[in-house]
Amino acid sequence: MSFVRNQWYVAGWDFEIGAAPLARTICGEPIVLYRKLDGDVVALRDACPHRLLPLSAGIREGDSIRCKYHGLKVGADGAAEEMPLKHERVNNTLCTPAYNTVQRHRFVWVWIGDQDRADADLVPNLWPCSASGWVADGGYKHVRCDYRLLIDNLMDLTHETYVHMGSIGQPELMESAIETTSDDRTVTVTRWMPGVQAPPFWRNALKQDGPVDRWQICQFLPPSSVLIDVGIAPIELRSTVDSHDGGVRGFVIDCMSPETETTTHYFWGMARSFDIDDGGAGGRLKAQQNKVFDEDVAVLELQQRSIELNPDLRLRTLSIDSGGAHARRILAQMADGA
Amino acid sequence: MSFVRNQWYVAGWDFEIGAAPLARTICGEPIVLYRKLDGDVVALRDACPHRLLPLSAGIREGDSIRCKYHGLKVGADGAAEEMPLKHERVNNTLCTPAYNTVQRHRFVWVWIGDQDRADADLVPNLWPCSASGWVADGGYKHVRCDYRLLIDNLMDLTHETYVHMGSIGQPELMESAIETTSDDRTVTVTRWMPGVQAPPFWRNALKQDGPVDRWQICQFLPPSSVLIDVGIAPIELRSTVDSHDGGVRGFVIDCMSPETETTTHYFWGMARSFDIDDGGAGGRLKAQQNKVFDEDVAVLELQQRSIELNPDLRLRTLSIDSGGAHARRILAQMADGA
Amino acid sequence: MSFVRNQWYVAGWDFEIGAAPLARTICGEPIVLYRKLDGDVVALRDACPHRLLPLSAGIREGDSIRCKYHGLKVGADGAAEEMPLKHERVNNTLCTPAYNTVQRHRFVWVWIGDQDRADADLVPNLWPCSASGWVADGGYKHVRCDYRLLIDNLMDLTHETYVHMGSIGQPELMESAIETTSDDRTVTVTRWMPGVQAPPFWRNALKQDGPVDRWQICQFLPPSSVLIDVGIAPIELRSTVDSHDGGVRGFVIDCMSPETETTTHYFWGMARSFDIDDGGAGGRLKAQQNKVFDEDVAVLELQQRSIELNPDLRLRTLSIDSGGAHARRILAQMADGA
Repeated sequence: MSFVRNQWYVAGWDFEIGAAPLARTICGEPIVLYRKLDGDVVALRDACPHRLLPLSAGIREGDSIRCKYHGLKVGADGAAEEMPLKHERVNNTLCTPAYNTVQRHRFVWVWIGDQDRADADLVPNLWPCSASGWVADGGYKHVRCDYRLLIDNLMDLTHETYVHMGSIGQPELMESAIETTSDDRTVTVTRWMPGVQAPPFWRNALKQDGPVDRWQICQFLPPSSVLIDVGIAPIELRSTVDSHDGGVRGFVIDCMSPETETTTHYFWGMARSFDIDDGGAGGRLKAQQNKVFDEDVAVLELQQRSIELNPDLRLRTLSIDSGGAHARRILAQMADGA
Repeated sequence: MSFVRNQWYVAGWDFEIGAAPLARTICGEPIVLYRKLDGDVVALRDACPHRLLPLSAGIREGDSIRCKYHGLKVGADGAAEEMPLKHERVNNTLCTPAYNTVQRHRFVWVWIGDQDRADADLVPNLWPCSASGWVADGGYKHVRCDYRLLIDNLMDLTHETYVHMGSIGQPELMESAIETTSDDRTVTVTRWMPGVQAPPFWRNALKQDGPVDRWQICQFLPPSSVLIDVGIAPIELRSTVDSHDGGVRGFVIDCMSPETETTTHYFWGMARSFDIDDGGAGGRLKAQQNKVFDEDVAVLELQQRSIELNPDLRLRTLSIDSGGAHARRILAQMADGA
Repeated sequence: MSFVRNQWYVAGWDFEIGAAPLARTICGEPIVLYRKLDGDVVALRDACPHRLLPLSAGIREGDSIRCKYHGLKVGADGAAEEMPLKHERVNNTLCTPAYNTVQRHRFVWVWIGDQDRADADLVPNLWPCSASGWVADGGYKHVRCDYRLLIDNLMDLTHETYVHMGSIGQPELMESAIETTSDDRTVTVTRWMPGVQAPPFWRNALKQDGPVDRWQICQFLPPSSVLIDVGIAPIELRSTVDSHDGGVRGFVIDCMSPETETTTHYFWGMARSFDIDDGGAGGRLKAQQNKVFDEDVAVLELQQRSIELNPDLRLRTLSIDSGGAHARRILAQMADGA
């Protein structure tokens, strides 16, 4: 089992989860999610504690949910509140497992593991999704691959040339050096391109001609988020890897929640601090991203299947894979320690 | 393996099995069924004793069946009658397993287990299907669940409120007490409703106004039939649980034959002693039943899948489940003893 | 595992394999095939030696193939020729397994097993496909059965009566005696029909009336080809089993390459030395064969499924199965010795 337990995983974008029950399996555990009247999100094992019918097939009542089979009513804490025979005393051993949730950075997070250890301070810091002056939007894809293949993909900036040949791939990206740094909780892959021509997309955002510094900085946040800091700034601003807020800047957002060993919920999007009053910019960005990520999904699903069909072969790690390799090492340590 | 062997199981409604071969797997055993010229039903393992091509793909000849691959002819007893090369002497070790069958109560029954122990007296007593003055009809559904989930469902009268909310569910049914009795071979769940208003369906059948006694009496007949005695009688007749033939009365018929551990052949229908000369009544009843049982199938297939996805959770038994729980206990004892 | 290793297997008809990569799994090994500029065929494990993306999704460049994920370029020998970062020195441990191939008798053959043992002299002798004065054509079918069931089928001439009842089956074929001979490398089943009436197809080919000698001679060539010598000759020519080139003669071509334990690539066709200048004859023959082999496929897939569903039953070998039984014995010996 490759799942790292005792971690927060994204269960959905904030806009995906409403009053109606939503079924989503995370780390192999079937979960039903819904929003209470006060807006908080309930996450329960998706099985009535009586005869295991999925609660997601049930009927919402107040902050509770009533099973569609025999009408047992389950509260937001997973405990039975009303028996099938309404006059019967509630059996307080009837309880479905409940999960801690947190809403933060535009996502609903669910704690997988020992619920007593859930600590909201451990939610990965996706600050660009919620910081003042920034906007974020995105979408959801179901991907038939191990979530670690998605992390490998996102921590490696060289695949763009071939996978995204028809969209964003540009051979000149390959010419800039990449630096990988890591500690025991994070990995960063940095590509700093000083004094280059801005590509059309970024020039339009900057609304100014002339040479720019350009950057792509991928950061792995355990257990399964990747933030990619992207943008350009006029060279006059003398930006650095550590300080580059003067031009136009965005973050590609990627949160991968394992569904099973070989399937993943992929929450993708973009946060930006430019063109935030341009009503059309968000939609255009999202449509472009959607197309690009579809190209990744096609490759990743082929890769997963090939791994299964060639059990005698193993993945090799080259210099370009150092980001993903470090991320996998951190995950392996966390799995051991959890 | 949850199958109870050395039992009669329904292989089909009498009208389902004719001269043409019908393939049906029962308790994991692929079986071919067909009717001989004298009307008796042949049941053989659905595999030619030569190279195992399903006999159900073969050609009927007299009371025998000829394999479509090499033309080996198999008799009603499963033994080879003619070799692929017609002039060759018949090899009398070529024989496919044959099953005892009985036609009774509108069904064709097949004995699963040691054929020497087959005893027609052990066929479950579905007398309303064949008694004089009664008519019976019904249909077939393939259900992707353990057959015991269907027994649980049918031995519990409280699920109607929620599962059949859109059809026959009525909250007032929940207010009547239920009594469960059992011995080591049968279980009965009784709901007697004295002095109530007749619902429209039953009032139309009775063709008379005024208060009535109403009943629903579920009886489990091992290994996998449930009969539900339903009806009403004017209170003047002073009906009792033991004697209630004066009004209008029917039996819901349910026979569940395991196909695999997680799929079931469901033979359902109704026997009645009223409106038997009303040509349209049978069709109306059957259409209504079909709709109601589709609601059950939807719930049962969700429940089966949830049981598989939540291996750490177990089914709980409440008071309303006592009928099904007793039935499961009888089945477990039979499985041990068989 | 039933695969016989250290053997040549057909990977495709010559016309199936061109410059574009073709993916085909043989004996459980995913293989990509393509033709080099000089016409030779490359066969590599269908997985990039870096991250295992199928090379069949890649881009052909000269005689090499470039992976669509990170752009690693693999040569015809399976070795990396260019790294994802083009300036990096090639890591010469990056190498995907390569397979020996031979083009012979209209097929591309691939060696499965120890590549050092590949010897072109061991290619099965399908001489009628390539001899002067002969033409051959055929097609491909994917069949969901163990390849040995296809061999059984082709080495037994009696199944025609029932399987091909609607096409080429003729009861009178059953009346002629069959002779089976074998050594430790081949099996031959011979049916010689002296002085019979020519059936319409053969009479049209011979273009002459009068009694003929007719023959059907099935030859098993390990590991998985069957050639069937068929034809007629006027009795005046005094043809014999050992010498029958005077009339009209053809060979049914059958090469079966195991894909998995229960699926097979079936390459079928016909070689003939008559009507070779009749432009329409080849197409008519191919259309007829296609229909006949579809009838076999339908039976074989039912048989495979029945074998899986009846694990307690076993295949029985009668006199008509002697050809297939000998072939299976040779295969078992080869599997032991390989």
